[in-house]
Amino acid sequence: MPYMFISTQIRLNGPTNVGDEYSDPAVMNYLGARKTTMLGNNFSEYHVDDPPRMVLDKLEKIGFRVLTMTGVGQTLVWCLHKEIE
Amino acid sequence: MPYMFISTQIRLNGPTNVGDEYSDPAVMNYLGARKTTMLGNNFSEYHVDDPPRMVLDKLEKIGFRVLTMTGVGQTLVWCLHKEIE
Amino acid sequence: MPYMFISTQIRLNGPTNVGDEYSDPAVMNYLGARKTTMLGNNFSEYHVDDPPRMVLDKLEKIGFRVLTMTGVGQTLVWCLHKEIE
Amino acid sequence: MPYMFISTQIRLNGPTNVGDEYSDPAVMNYLGARKTTMLGNNFSEYHVDDPPRMVLDKLEKIGFRVLTMTGVGQTLVWCLHKEIE
Amino acid sequence: MPYMFISTQIRLNGPTNVGDEYSDPAVMNYLGARKTTMLGNNFSEYHVDDPPRMVLDKLEKIGFRVLTMTGVGQTLVWCLHKEIE
Repeated sequence: MPYMFISTQIRLNGPTNVGDEYSDPAVMNYLGARKTTMLGNNFSEYHVDDPPRMVLDKLEKIGFRVLTMTGVGQTLVWCLHKEIE
Repeated sequence: MPYMFISTQIRLNGPTNVGDEYSDPAVMNYLGARKTTMLGNNFSEYHVDDPPRMVLDKLEKIGFRVLTMTGVGQTLVWCLHKEIE
Repeated sequence: MPYMFISTQIRLNGPTNVGDEYSDPAVMNYLGARKTTMLGNNFSEYHVDDPPRMVLDKLEKIGFRVLTMTGVGQTLVWCLHKEIE
Repeated sequence: MPYMFISTQIRLNGPTNVGDEYSDPAVMNYLGARKTTMLGNNFSEYHVDDPPRMVLDKLEKIGFRVLTMTGVGQTLVWCLHKEIE
Repeated sequence: MPYMFISTQIRLNGPTNVGDEYSDPAVMNYLGARKTTMLGNNFSEYHVDDPPRMVLDKLEKIGFRVLTMTGVGQTLVWCLHKEIE
C-alpha cells in the first residue's frame, strides 16, 4: 500500500481520519487508530485523536511522505506516498 | 496516454471514476473498470468499486504516479503521469 | 512563454480552454484551437473540443509538463511549464 | 524575500495582484506594478493589468518559479519561490 | 516535528496562524508568536501579525520549505516540511 490518505474537518486540530476498512492493520495499529462506523454509513473508518501534523510526523518515521494536500468541501485531505523498496 | 485522471465524490471510499470514453482500453481492463453512461449525459465514463487509494496502488504497478490532487465542488480529482520510455 | 494554463468546467470532459488572447499562436494552432469571444466578455479565449487529458498528452509532446492543478469555483485549472532551452 | 504570491479573481485574465505593502520595491518596479489601497481596506496592495500567465513568465526571468497554485473562494493564488544564492 | 502548517483567512495579509498547542515552543518563540484561545474553542493556537509571505521567509531560514498550499472554505493553508538531519 504505497499510497495513504489522512483527512480532517476544516480545523488543523484532531481528530484525524487515517484509514478505510482496507487499510494496513499494522500501520493503523502503529498510529493507535480505532476502527469506527459512523451512524448511517455502511463502511468503517480509522480515526486518531492526534492533529494531522502529529500524524504526518509519525508517518514520516515509517517512510510515508506528503505528496500533496487539498481542500474539498469542509475537509482537508493529505495524499502520502511510500517508496516501495 | 502519459496523463490519467481518477476522481471520487467527496468521501475517500469508492466508487472511483477512472476514465473517459477515449481512455486506453488495456488500462481500463487492467483495473476491471466498467463503461457506463449516466442518465442525461451524452458521454460515457469508466468506473470501479474500489476506493481511490486502491486504484492508485494498482496504477503505480504499471507506472503511473500521482502528480497532484485537488478538490473542485464535491469532487476529489487526482492527476497521474507515466514517464514515456 | 514557459507557463501555460488549461481549464475546464468541473467535468473532466471537453471543451477545454487552452489560451488567452496573448497566447502563442503556434501552440494554439498545434492544438487546433479556435479563438472565441464569449457574450458579455471584452476579451477572447482559445478553446478545443478535446478533454483536458488529451490536451495534456499533446502538450507533453512539445515540452509542457503539469506543475500543479487546482479547483476554483466550478473550474479545474492546470498550470503547465516548459523548460527554456 | 524568497517567497512571492500572485493572485487573480477566478478568471485567468488580469488584473493580477502581485504584492503587499512589504513587497520588494525592486520586484514591484520590474513588474510595472502600481500600489493601491482598496476602499475599506487598511492595507495597500500592488497590481498589474497583465494576466497571471504573463506575470509568471516575467518572474521566471528573475528567478522565481511556481511551487504550487490553489483556489480559495473565488480567488486563484500562485506561490512562487526563488532559491537564495 | 518535520511538518508544520501555517494558515490565514482568505486574504494574503496577516494575522497568520502558525501553530497548535503541541507546536515546538522554540519555533513559536523564533516567530514571535503569541498563544491564544479563541472564544468557544477548547484548544489554543499560536498567531503572529505578519502576513504569511513573511512567515514563510522566516521559516525558510530555519530549514522549513513549502511542500504544498491549498484553500479550504475561506482559509488558505501551507504545508511545510523540514528535512531531518
